[in-house]
Amino acid sequence: MTLLPTAADKFAFGLWTVGWTGNDPFGAPTRAALDPVEAVHRLAELGAYGITFHDNDLIPFDASAAEREQILSAFRTALEKTGLKVPTVTTNLFSHPVFKDGGFTSNDRSVRRFALAKVLRTIDLAAEFGAETFVMWGGREGSEYDGSKDLAAAFDRYREGVDTAAAYIKDKGYGLRIALEPKPNEPRGDILLPTVGHALGFIAQLEHGDIVGVNPETGHEQMAGLNFTHGIAQALWAGKLFHIDLNGQRGIKYDQDLVFGHGDLTSAFFTVDLLENGFPGGGPRYEGPRHFDYKPSRTDGYDGVWESARANMATYLRLRERAAAFRADPEVQEALRASGVHELSEPTLAAGESAADLLADASAFQEFDVEKAAAHSFAFVRLNQLAIEHLTGGR
Amino acid sequence: MTLLPTAADKFAFGLWTVGWTGNDPFGAPTRAALDPVEAVHRLAELGAYGITFHDNDLIPFDASAAEREQILSAFRTALEKTGLKVPTVTTNLFSHPVFKDGGFTSNDRSVRRFALAKVLRTIDLAAEFGAETFVMWGGREGSEYDGSKDLAAAFDRYREGVDTAAAYIKDKGYGLRIALEPKPNEPRGDILLPTVGHALGFIAQLEHGDIVGVNPETGHEQMAGLNFTHGIAQALWAGKLFHIDLNGQRGIKYDQDLVFGHGDLTSAFFTVDLLENGFPGGGPRYEGPRHFDYKPSRTDGYDGVWESARANMATYLRLRERAAAFRADPEVQEALRASGVHELSEPTLAAGESAADLLADASAFQEFDVEKAAAHSFAFVRLNQLAIEHLTGGR
Amino acid sequence: MTLLPTAADKFAFGLWTVGWTGNDPFGAPTRAALDPVEAVHRLAELGAYGITFHDNDLIPFDASAAEREQILSAFRTALEKTGLKVPTVTTNLFSHPVFKDGGFTSNDRSVRRFALAKVLRTIDLAAEFGAETFVMWGGREGSEYDGSKDLAAAFDRYREGVDTAAAYIKDKGYGLRIALEPKPNEPRGDILLPTVGHALGFIAQLEHGDIVGVNPETGHEQMAGLNFTHGIAQALWAGKLFHIDLNGQRGIKYDQDLVFGHGDLTSAFFTVDLLENGFPGGGPRYEGPRHFDYKPSRTDGYDGVWESARANMATYLRLRERAAAFRADPEVQEALRASGVHELSEPTLAAGESAADLLADASAFQEFDVEKAAAHSFAFVRLNQLAIEHLTGGR
Amino acid sequence: MTLLPTAADKFAFGLWTVGWTGNDPFGAPTRAALDPVEAVHRLAELGAYGITFHDNDLIPFDASAAEREQILSAFRTALEKTGLKVPTVTTNLFSHPVFKDGGFTSNDRSVRRFALAKVLRTIDLAAEFGAETFVMWGGREGSEYDGSKDLAAAFDRYREGVDTAAAYIKDKGYGLRIALEPKPNEPRGDILLPTVGHALGFIAQLEHGDIVGVNPETGHEQMAGLNFTHGIAQALWAGKLFHIDLNGQRGIKYDQDLVFGHGDLTSAFFTVDLLENGFPGGGPRYEGPRHFDYKPSRTDGYDGVWESARANMATYLRLRERAAAFRADPEVQEALRASGVHELSEPTLAAGESAADLLADASAFQEFDVEKAAAHSFAFVRLNQLAIEHLTGGR
Repeated sequence: MTLLPTAADKFAFGLWTVGWTGNDPFGAPTRAALDPVEAVHRLAELGAYGITFHDNDLIPFDASAAEREQILSAFRTALEKTGLKVPTVTTNLFSHPVFKDGGFTSNDRSVRRFALAKVLRTIDLAAEFGAETFVMWGGREGSEYDGSKDLAAAFDRYREGVDTAAAYIKDKGYGLRIALEPKPNEPRGDILLPTVGHALGFIAQLEHGDIVGVNPETGHEQMAGLNFTHGIAQALWAGKLFHIDLNGQRGIKYDQDLVFGHGDLTSAFFTVDLLENGFPGGGPRYEGPRHFDYKPSRTDGYDGVWESARANMATYLRLRERAAAFRADPEVQEALRASGVHELSEPTLAAGESAADLLADASAFQEFDVEKAAAHSFAFVRLNQLAIEHLTGGR
Repeated sequence: MTLLPTAADKFAFGLWTVGWTGNDPFGAPTRAALDPVEAVHRLAELGAYGITFHDNDLIPFDASAAEREQILSAFRTALEKTGLKVPTVTTNLFSHPVFKDGGFTSNDRSVRRFALAKVLRTIDLAAEFGAETFVMWGGREGSEYDGSKDLAAAFDRYREGVDTAAAYIKDKGYGLRIALEPKPNEPRGDILLPTVGHALGFIAQLEHGDIVGVNPETGHEQMAGLNFTHGIAQALWAGKLFHIDLNGQRGIKYDQDLVFGHGDLTSAFFTVDLLENGFPGGGPRYEGPRHFDYKPSRTDGYDGVWESARANMATYLRLRERAAAFRADPEVQEALRASGVHELSEPTLAAGESAADLLADASAFQEFDVEKAAAHSFAFVRLNQLAIEHLTGGR
Repeated sequence: MTLLPTAADKFAFGLWTVGWTGNDPFGAPTRAALDPVEAVHRLAELGAYGITFHDNDLIPFDASAAEREQILSAFRTALEKTGLKVPTVTTNLFSHPVFKDGGFTSNDRSVRRFALAKVLRTIDLAAEFGAETFVMWGGREGSEYDGSKDLAAAFDRYREGVDTAAAYIKDKGYGLRIALEPKPNEPRGDILLPTVGHALGFIAQLEHGDIVGVNPETGHEQMAGLNFTHGIAQALWAGKLFHIDLNGQRGIKYDQDLVFGHGDLTSAFFTVDLLENGFPGGGPRYEGPRHFDYKPSRTDGYDGVWESARANMATYLRLRERAAAFRADPEVQEALRASGVHELSEPTLAAGESAADLLADASAFQEFDVEKAAAHSFAFVRLNQLAIEHLTGGR
Repeated sequence: MTLLPTAADKFAFGLWTVGWTGNDPFGAPTRAALDPVEAVHRLAELGAYGITFHDNDLIPFDASAAEREQILSAFRTALEKTGLKVPTVTTNLFSHPVFKDGGFTSNDRSVRRFALAKVLRTIDLAAEFGAETFVMWGGREGSEYDGSKDLAAAFDRYREGVDTAAAYIKDKGYGLRIALEPKPNEPRGDILLPTVGHALGFIAQLEHGDIVGVNPETGHEQMAGLNFTHGIAQALWAGKLFHIDLNGQRGIKYDQDLVFGHGDLTSAFFTVDLLENGFPGGGPRYEGPRHFDYKPSRTDGYDGVWESARANMATYLRLRERAAAFRADPEVQEALRASGVHELSEPTLAAGESAADLLADASAFQEFDVEKAAAHSFAFVRLNQLAIEHLTGGR
């Protein structure tokens, strides 16, 4: 009864997800390393559309040029054989100790130069693989102590880094867009650009912000207690939802990277509803890959790794089915109307009405029947209960 | 030994702060109502510079025109007698049941029109009192259930509301700027524009965003587990820190609105250090009022109300003193250099250097001594310990 | 398709739940008061088994003796007509300003005496209505500032209060047991006995702890980021799960009191699974009422109030159905075995084996094949995915 | 001006603290390994009293018997030379992959036996070094998914493990007490015994609970948003504060293990006030070591390691000095009285007064002047402001 995906569903996985061997702050790896070539074949068999990677997921930090070529060649062959795409590539600016104070915003300028060069080289790699999106997660751009950063300088350097990368993409004529991935904390005490909102605000300050958007991750927003669907909705509305990382998180705690749907299930339902069915009144739609950025539980062996990869996709498909039924249900449509959900699309001012006109309209204020309006029942509980009933297969 | 403020310190208080009578979700008021005129006199005596208000703090929701004039007249007289300023005014779009689903984004269009008219009228009032900043806290713009809002429509309506208000200010030639106040939740399950970042991202989508900035509140950002100093720094860097609400919060929980410094004291120290001393390498400075948005504990009588007003200012002044000593300490200056804090102001690229130049610089990447750079100690603990020693009066 | 309850399902509601009129920290009531008699009739019609109350939900704080009798008489009549039970009664020690620093632990001894007398009188009332459980939520027993309480004295007074009440119950021969309801914060900054665990630890220090257990509330534990099912499991294991408050909460924030299932749905599934199906290997079972302690959204009128009451029960019944299917599924049973869930019931030591015997058993340590054991896959993701598939009606 | 400790201050450090090399979930170690012998010498030079360890901090998991003896011999020599004590020892049941599903509560019985044998052997080692406390942190006893544990069985096995260890200690006549260390999550999604309260409740179910208490860690309680001082106060009150782990945490997020005082400074002040000055009205006192369980920032080299070790102690001493002045200040004493802090020590009932007597005392209830009592100002803000002024060296 598990739903089976096809490439048309556009499911993609990071090489670092199925390839995570299970090291955590308190324990050593519990699984052997995974050959990237095997990852490609396995994911293709499971029905995935794409595979993504950080430069060092594929090519070790200290690989020789010959090793690099050998690895790339084997990987390309696997992609060709399976038809798997590489929609997205990103740079690892966090694992090596040299990045302990960050990459673009390290207090050490030589590290900043190294980081920027590493990013530019990975952009070339991304273009080579035909990727459409270049993700930047600045996981170590931050601090534990407020005094350890000149914050204005940090934002200047962050802007310099992103703008330099974006200009490089334009200069080279690459078909790439940059997607910034926010996270509030971990591994740093506080990370710069902690939420989708902060990234959107930052992009507005860029010279080349036109090709820079966001890559929100379910769990990252939820680590700040924020509503993920609200976050991606604001990004979509701003024309900036360039990519998405789906996974599961159970509340405000360390980054869990659970399977999609194994965290906040109701939020996952509404996320899928938005991605698949759009806003009730229309508007911008997300067309990119459904990318899973999760970690298979370290309690499990490779049986659990592939089971978890399948589970991400199966749960997404189940929620897609449930969300379609939710939208198609006449009782839901009636409830949406009763709750005024469609009414919100109507502008507050009439066509051509000015502020002065509104102030002159006594029916809007002086003669407005406030008590009557206050008594209006929005009937939101009923609408939500319909969603829960659909989600639990009860309708 | 308590430090005493003067008007030059630019301390301001909301009328709703010292006037809060103590109702909470589980209990009735514990204090009698406070006459706004008394509030003006008391705050002036304590050394405050300004008093601020929501329209309905001063003028009851259902006041007659005559009552309104009488109240305003008495309030103006008190201001004149004391010299207290009204730097900021805002609109109450949350107390009356009519706003139960929000003001600008209520699913009920008639409520949206009422709310917008109420805002425009309060803008007139703000201009009349010579205010410089018009705050908008959309505390009820949000939802408990993801299905109850068309989120794209909600952002459209929010933009319509703010842009209409901003255009009205420009049309009228008022010397006002709008400051949006973010909050993640409470009284709604999830509030739109939950953080400083989301507000900055939203402002970038406005037609009249040039006169719209943010009014971050200490506790609101901390309710999302975010670093307040980082948040105001990003707003300052973007030229958008138009106002500030200082108070105290003890972690992720309900909105506590404690006295400034009675929450996260170390964060308060760095907030004051940034407000008073600026970024270490220079850059934009905040020049507006130091506005306290807090609630005197409901366990206390009016003795505690005035004691708490004094405490906000005294603690700010103490932290200002400590932060000045911190910056002036030669050992701190040496530690800042050792930690590379000043080095972050140096651009990553040399003057005129392009991405291609960087890639061509083998010293930046291929020949970069990664292990040596990785061994660089940033000595951040020492720097933070110096801050803690200054904060605790130990140096 | 909504599932309909009967009295046999033992669903109970607080009078304060359907009767909540919608006041919150930032807004006035949005609904008119509800007559307790109407509440009884409505809940009975909806299929509830019981209604519960704080003394002042039924009888206003300042009611005269005559008013008291009149109210009680009308309420009794309604109960008789409908057959609704009063399984639980509790005391309001939080709404009136006199309790602003708590009841049993107020720093003011005269308040402590008043609170204790109020509790004893409410115990009489509970006995009169044939209640089985007397709940104590010490919502105002706490502080905002660590210095404002002598904490050892506070625990002494808390113990004195609970022990006095318990002794009174025993002396009177009432068929009542006390259930302490933990909450981490709100309305106080920090509440004493913040979690199920702290209450269990406190009970162990009582003289009359034999008739004192806990009344965990879903949202209260989740406000501390804790796993609710783990919490009630520890209470059950200790023989102390005397009562339960079911509702919904969306993460660490203010107390939301949403409909059961409108918060963390997956947690709700496992809560119902435990309550209805018990531990996989047997053990203590919960037999008391399924009590909903929630608030109907203040955006809704009375249509939403009754819809929300129905939704609590319907969702519980849906989850009961899903949990039964989960347990009955042979593939789940096989997965439970594969994950070793049943194996955990087997003692670690063999029958009669001592620590010395274990140390002497080389197969347990010196000759233990650690690498082989480390490679054991627990296959937990698969088991959880089966739960999610059942929960979403996918199997 | 940094305060210097002596052995009389009883400061102790875990070998794993100064020895942490900086691996985290996203990055490799940034520091070389530290020789335990060097750790002993360095800590002694800095003025510490004790050093503590997990078995595998000192002796690698796979050390041969000869290696073990060599390491122990060198370590003992260092202890003798420096006079450093080993007040506490604990077992590592989390790093090796064999413990991926826990030790005492792993679903794999062979792992449970291995874990229990490892604990018993470490108890022998602890006794050999003259330790007084044997800490048990069950960091991997937990789950990510509610279905993956039979929770009653898990508590049974946890009890079996602790009781077996406690019985072994008694049988051997060792002068050891066990201290359970709670933590809410990380590295497991939810850890059993998540808070001080849950551990206290669990201990009440043990056969040998008389020699079992708790080892609360500052950051662990704060990861659940709980008040650390309240937690240790409840443990002290119950006679169960056997040990303490001091460090710093900045709110609800991953386990930061910052320097003591580099997290919530105000909480740290009140923690020291309680440890050093006791409850205002007397009562049980903590006499054990002041043990720091922190991690030196991975951004720093060994200069930062030793600086951070020093900082823990210096800040503790600074806060001790500030807390002593706070208590000695006549204005504080007067404020404590005004706030009724001492009054809480007075029993609610008079000597010999029964519940019936209280009910018969009309002055307590029927004739109680509720409005007058409600108007009583507790003046808590003033008291807290005095604390903040002392903490910041302003008095």
